[in-house]
Amino acid sequence: MSNDTLNVCIMAGGKGERFWPVSRATQPKQLMNIVGARSMIAETVVRNQQVTSLAQVYVVTTQAQAGAVAVAAPELARANIIGEPCGKNTAPCIGLICALLAARDADAVLAVVPADHCIPDAALYAQTLRDAAAVARRERALLTIGIQPTFPETGYGYILADAPVAFAGPTRFSRVTQFIEKPPQARAEELIATGHAFWNAGMFVFRVADMLAALTTHVPAMAAGLAGVTAAARTGNEHEVAAAMAALYAAAPAISIDYAVMEKATNVIVAHGAFVWDDVGSWLAVAAHWPQDAHGNATRGAVLALDSAGCVLRNDAPGIVAVLGLQDVVVVRTADAVLVCPKDRAQEVKKLVQALQAAPATRGLVE
Amino acid sequence: MSNDTLNVCIMAGGKGERFWPVSRATQPKQLMNIVGARSMIAETVVRNQQVTSLAQVYVVTTQAQAGAVAVAAPELARANIIGEPCGKNTAPCIGLICALLAARDADAVLAVVPADHCIPDAALYAQTLRDAAAVARRERALLTIGIQPTFPETGYGYILADAPVAFAGPTRFSRVTQFIEKPPQARAEELIATGHAFWNAGMFVFRVADMLAALTTHVPAMAAGLAGVTAAARTGNEHEVAAAMAALYAAAPAISIDYAVMEKATNVIVAHGAFVWDDVGSWLAVAAHWPQDAHGNATRGAVLALDSAGCVLRNDAPGIVAVLGLQDVVVVRTADAVLVCPKDRAQEVKKLVQALQAAPATRGLVE
Repeated sequence: MSNDTLNVCIMAGGKGERFWPVSRATQPKQLMNIVGARSMIAETVVRNQQVTSLAQVYVVTTQAQAGAVAVAAPELARANIIGEPCGKNTAPCIGLICALLAARDADAVLAVVPADHCIPDAALYAQTLRDAAAVARRERALLTIGIQPTFPETGYGYILADAPVAFAGPTRFSRVTQFIEKPPQARAEELIATGHAFWNAGMFVFRVADMLAALTTHVPAMAAGLAGVTAAARTGNEHEVAAAMAALYAAAPAISIDYAVMEKATNVIVAHGAFVWDDVGSWLAVAAHWPQDAHGNATRGAVLALDSAGCVLRNDAPGIVAVLGLQDVVVVRTADAVLVCPKDRAQEVKKLVQALQAAPATRGLVE
Repeated sequence: MSNDTLNVCIMAGGKGERFWPVSRATQPKQLMNIVGARSMIAETVVRNQQVTSLAQVYVVTTQAQAGAVAVAAPELARANIIGEPCGKNTAPCIGLICALLAARDADAVLAVVPADHCIPDAALYAQTLRDAAAVARRERALLTIGIQPTFPETGYGYILADAPVAFAGPTRFSRVTQFIEKPPQARAEELIATGHAFWNAGMFVFRVADMLAALTTHVPAMAAGLAGVTAAARTGNEHEVAAAMAALYAAAPAISIDYAVMEKATNVIVAHGAFVWDDVGSWLAVAAHWPQDAHGNATRGAVLALDSAGCVLRNDAPGIVAVLGLQDVVVVRTADAVLVCPKDRAQEVKKLVQALQAAPATRGLVE
C-alpha cells in the first residue's frame, strides 16, 4: 500500500427505521433496493470504485448484517467486511477502521462515507474525495465533505465555513468555523443566506493517524481500545482482533464522530461538494425517484389512486393498495404490514417502529 | 297457511361494494360478520323469527349467493332460499316472491326487509311489522316502515306523511304524502323540522295480491312475467318455475320498488318505526359498533395508531396496520388489499370497486 493509496470505508450500520415496513432491523435501508436497480450498498461500492481500487474499499457493519452485505456486494473481499460487536454510532466505527488500517499503513488516508446515500455523479464525487485526501495529507487536517444547500432543509446538520480557498485540484475548500445541529426553518434560511453554509453529509476524509490522535485526545475512553485493536491486528490473530474489538466497543461511548471529534478539533476543513446528493432519508425522499401520475402521486407497485394528489404509494405485496380522496399521504404495504401517515410526518416513522418494538406481540414486525 | 299468517321475505341481493376490501361480489355485506357475532343475514333470520314462524321466512338472493346463504343461515329450509336469475333492483325481486306466494295463498300478507340492517330491538321491530300487516290486510294498503329520524342524514331517502292516526296495535301510522330521494343537508333539516318525515328503511308490508296488482298497473312490462311465475309455481314443476322466472327477469326493468310502485300508488301508509335502526351503510356506520380508543379511533384487529384521532382502522390479516398523525381516515386491510380514504369519502368506496372491476388485472380483487 503506497502513501498515495486512498482507502474508503463505507459505514453500513443504519437501522433504517424510517423505511419501515419495507426496511427491518435485518433488512435496513442500505440493503434495500430503494432508488436504483441494486441495493444502496451495492451502488455505493460501485461508486467508490471510482475513488480507489476495490481492494481498498471496506465496509463496517453490524455482525448480524455482515453476511447480507457480502451477498449484496459480492465483489467485495469478505475480509474487507468488518462486523462491529454492536452499534455505537459513528465514532467507535471510525475508530475501529482507523485502528485496523494503522496496523498495516501508518500513513494511510481514509474516506468514511455512509452506505445509503444517493449520488448520481460518481465521477465528481470521486474527484472531490481524492482532492480532499490530498488536502488531508498535506495539511494534516480533518476534512468533511459539505454539500451546497439548495433549500433550507431542517433535517440536516449544517457546516459554517470561512471564505473558500483552493487547496488541491478543481475542488474548493474552506476552513470550518462551526458545526450546527439540525436548525429550525428560520435559522436554516439565515445560514443559506450567508453563502458560507453547507449541508453536513456525514462524509469525512483524513489521515488515519490524525483521526486516531484526535479520538485519543477527545474521547479518552477509547484510547486504550484503539491501541489494542492496532496491536492485535499486527499479530494477524483473528481471535485477538475480535477480543480487542470487543474491548474497544465495551469502553467506547455511543457518540457520533461529529460530536466526538469534528466539533472539537481545530484543523477542520470542508471540501465543497458540488455534486447532487440525497441522503434519501425518508419515504418522501425515496418517492422523488419513482414515477408520478398526473396528480403528483408517486407510486411503486400495484396501486389505484382515485381523486388523490401528492401521495406516496408503494405496494410490495401481491394485491392492491387502493386510495380515494387522499392528499399528501404516504401508504406503504408489505406482506405483513401497512404504514399510513401524512407526508409531513414521514420523518417520524421510527416512532411507530419503536412502539412496535416495545410490545412482544408486534416485535417480530420490525425485526 | 291461514289468512293470519305473515310471510317475511329477506332481500339479500346487495353487492356490498361499500365494504370493499372486506366485502366482495361473492362475499357481500349480508354474508359478513359486520356488527354481531354472526353474519348479518343470519342475524336477520333470527330477528324475523319474532315476526313469524321460520317456515314463513324466505330469502331472495342471487343464484350465485344462494349456497352461501344456506350455509350462513342453516336453520332456513333450502326451498325458502330463492335465487334470482340476475340482480335487477327490488321491484323484480318483490314481484317474484309475490308471484310465488300467490300460487299458494291468494290472501297472503308479506313483509319484505333488507338482509343487512342492524335492529337491536327485535321485539319492537316484530310488533311494528305485525301491526303493519294487520293494517295492510284491513286497509288494502301498501305499508312502508318509516324510521323516526334522529339527525339530518343525507344518505337516506325520506317519507313525508300526514298527522298520525292509530290503525292497529301500539304502532302509530300515517298516510304517506311524498317519497323524497336523498336530500341535501338543508332540505333534510327542513324535513325533520316538519315532524312528519321519516327515513325510508326499505321495509314494506302488503297483501301479495295488492302488490301484484300495483306492479301489473305501474310496471306493465312485468305483468305477463308475474302471472307466468304464479302459473308455473302452481304446477310444482321446478323447470317450469325456473323458465318463468327467467322470462320475468328478462322482461323486467331494473328498478326499485319505491320508484316502480310506492311513489305512484295512492293507498300508501307509513308505520312509525320507533326502534333503533342502522342500515350500516358504510365503514363509518360499522365502526360505530367497534371499540374506540381514547382519541376516538374505532379499531378492529391488530392496529397501532400514534398521534391519530377519529380514525376507522380495521385489520383482517396477519400482521399490522400502523398509522401516524392521521385524522379522520379510514384504513381497512385484508390479505390482498388495503383501502385508505378520508371518513367523509367512505360512502364512495364503490368508486374504487368499479375502477378495480374495470381492469382485467385487478378484477379478481373485487370478486
